[in-house]
Amino acid sequence: MLKIHGVLETAVYVNDMQRAHVFYNDVLGLERMFEGDRLFAYNAGPGSVLLVFLRGGATEDLDTPGGMIPGHNSVGPAHFALRIEADTYERWKLHIAARNIAILSEVKWPAGGQSVYFNDPDGNVVELATPGNWPNDPVTTG
Amino acid sequence: MLKIHGVLETAVYVNDMQRAHVFYNDVLGLERMFEGDRLFAYNAGPGSVLLVFLRGGATEDLDTPGGMIPGHNSVGPAHFALRIEADTYERWKLHIAARNIAILSEVKWPAGGQSVYFNDPDGNVVELATPGNWPNDPVTTG
Repeated sequence: MLKIHGVLETAVYVNDMQRAHVFYNDVLGLERMFEGDRLFAYNAGPGSVLLVFLRGGATEDLDTPGGMIPGHNSVGPAHFALRIEADTYERWKLHIAARNIAILSEVKWPAGGQSVYFNDPDGNVVELATPGNWPNDPVTTG
Repeated sequence: MLKIHGVLETAVYVNDMQRAHVFYNDVLGLERMFEGDRLFAYNAGPGSVLLVFLRGGATEDLDTPGGMIPGHNSVGPAHFALRIEADTYERWKLHIAARNIAILSEVKWPAGGQSVYFNDPDGNVVELATPGNWPNDPVTTG
């Protein structure tokens, strides 16, 4: 049976790669697995990769020894969400605030999770979400 | 310790929600967990959600009973990758081709994985990738 087993790569587009690295590595604590001119790749958990692309830097198709990687690009403050454990939610908020990053809002979800939203340096809308947001990521009772 | 436990939500922006649904539900086989005017949410695996937003439909902040959800948007053919099992790669290719979706390219990765690329109906660059693309998603030997 043909089945999708998760999102492997999520892309975010930025105007300044080093500034983005401070945010994604230093503030969010994501390990950089690959560093190129137009692309940094971060380990966001097992089988979960956050790709940070230079805006306009990956528009052209790219020939590689293994085959051609099609070009892509995006403009605008896009959105993605990262999973965090419920018992780290308040500490994450303190950590974000201590880095002088403005918290845009918080949401409590009907299924029991909660989210905090803030911008990356390029205005992308980052969400940290605890379990209990979607049916396939329920609150775990321990 | 503050730690990210994966990407929970990956957003893709489209101009026609029903046309996108045919692609994401019918062709890729993703179950729709939520259906709204400006947002469909698909189960992409445990703790992995693909959000399909109407372009320009989520630009404004949205007040909900649990709190405000900040607005966001994106224009352009963005990129994301979905995980598939290695032994389904060839069948996925046949499945895609049988739906008259043009395959843009294929790539063999140094770590042993391979990827096939094609567009969604709005030109977003979709990749189906087997394990062996990134260090945190290695080829499994069974």
